[in-house]
Amino acid sequence: MKKLASLILLSAIATLSGPAMAQFAKAEDAIKYRQSALFVMQQNFGRIAAMAAGRAPLDAKVAAESAEVATYMSKLPWAAFGEGTDKGAPTKAKAEIWSNKAKFNDYAEKMQGEMNKLNAAAKTGNLDSIKAAVGAASGSCKTCHDAFRS
Amino acid sequence: MKKLASLILLSAIATLSGPAMAQFAKAEDAIKYRQSALFVMQQNFGRIAAMAAGRAPLDAKVAAESAEVATYMSKLPWAAFGEGTDKGAPTKAKAEIWSNKAKFNDYAEKMQGEMNKLNAAAKTGNLDSIKAAVGAASGSCKTCHDAFRS
Repeated sequence: MKKLASLILLSAIATLSGPAMAQFAKAEDAIKYRQSALFVMQQNFGRIAAMAAGRAPLDAKVAAESAEVATYMSKLPWAAFGEGTDKGAPTKAKAEIWSNKAKFNDYAEKMQGEMNKLNAAAKTGNLDSIKAAVGAASGSCKTCHDAFRS
Repeated sequence: MKKLASLILLSAIATLSGPAMAQFAKAEDAIKYRQSALFVMQQNFGRIAAMAAGRAPLDAKVAAESAEVATYMSKLPWAAFGEGTDKGAPTKAKAEIWSNKAKFNDYAEKMQGEMNKLNAAAKTGNLDSIKAAVGAASGSCKTCHDAFRS
């Protein structure tokens, strides 16, 4: 009975909160999803950033592969910022994400654009191009974190 | 000085543990990386599995998009099972992964193959094809979990 009650409750929540949330069974899943996607992105991005900063030697193959994954991952987190996902699990997401969604979406799009450029730069294998693209992408992460991450 | 010492230590670890581990600064990152990739895959796969089981109505567009992401994600976790990543953060990974790497890799490849087939099935939008592919993919997850996840 407890399981049935949970299922009914979950269905009700899914219905109430609309399509943005409906992809996830519960807010906890959405929060974990966006954190997971951002972590996978960050690990791949960090590998290229280490090369750009001279902390690791340039490995053009690894840079290109990592940029490809980071670019793919940069598209995924946003579906998991639906209404009702501001709490339900530990999260650094600020309430401003939902009160200023247009600005948040704009920052998210800019980051994806910078990641696309990094992907192109990494494919050239040119360290100066990679450095410039890492700097711009890193800036787009920071702009959004400063505004929307506590 | 403390930071410098950490950097030297990290470099030493990266050198000692070879290429499989060198992608990650520490075992904790590798563990979190594979768990994150598998979680993003599972959430996308679960959406299609719910349609296959009749717990959600078939939405061909969502199924196709989710299968695409699940297929992409299915390729990512394996680089994060390098030597020395059996501990360092909470993990359900059994020691058998490293003592029987050939079998583990075989299961991992089979799962990726089943996910490719699910991706193709989802694109057709045919529920029976999706059901069959979900069943096979689900079986490949279970086979590996039974052997290698505690």
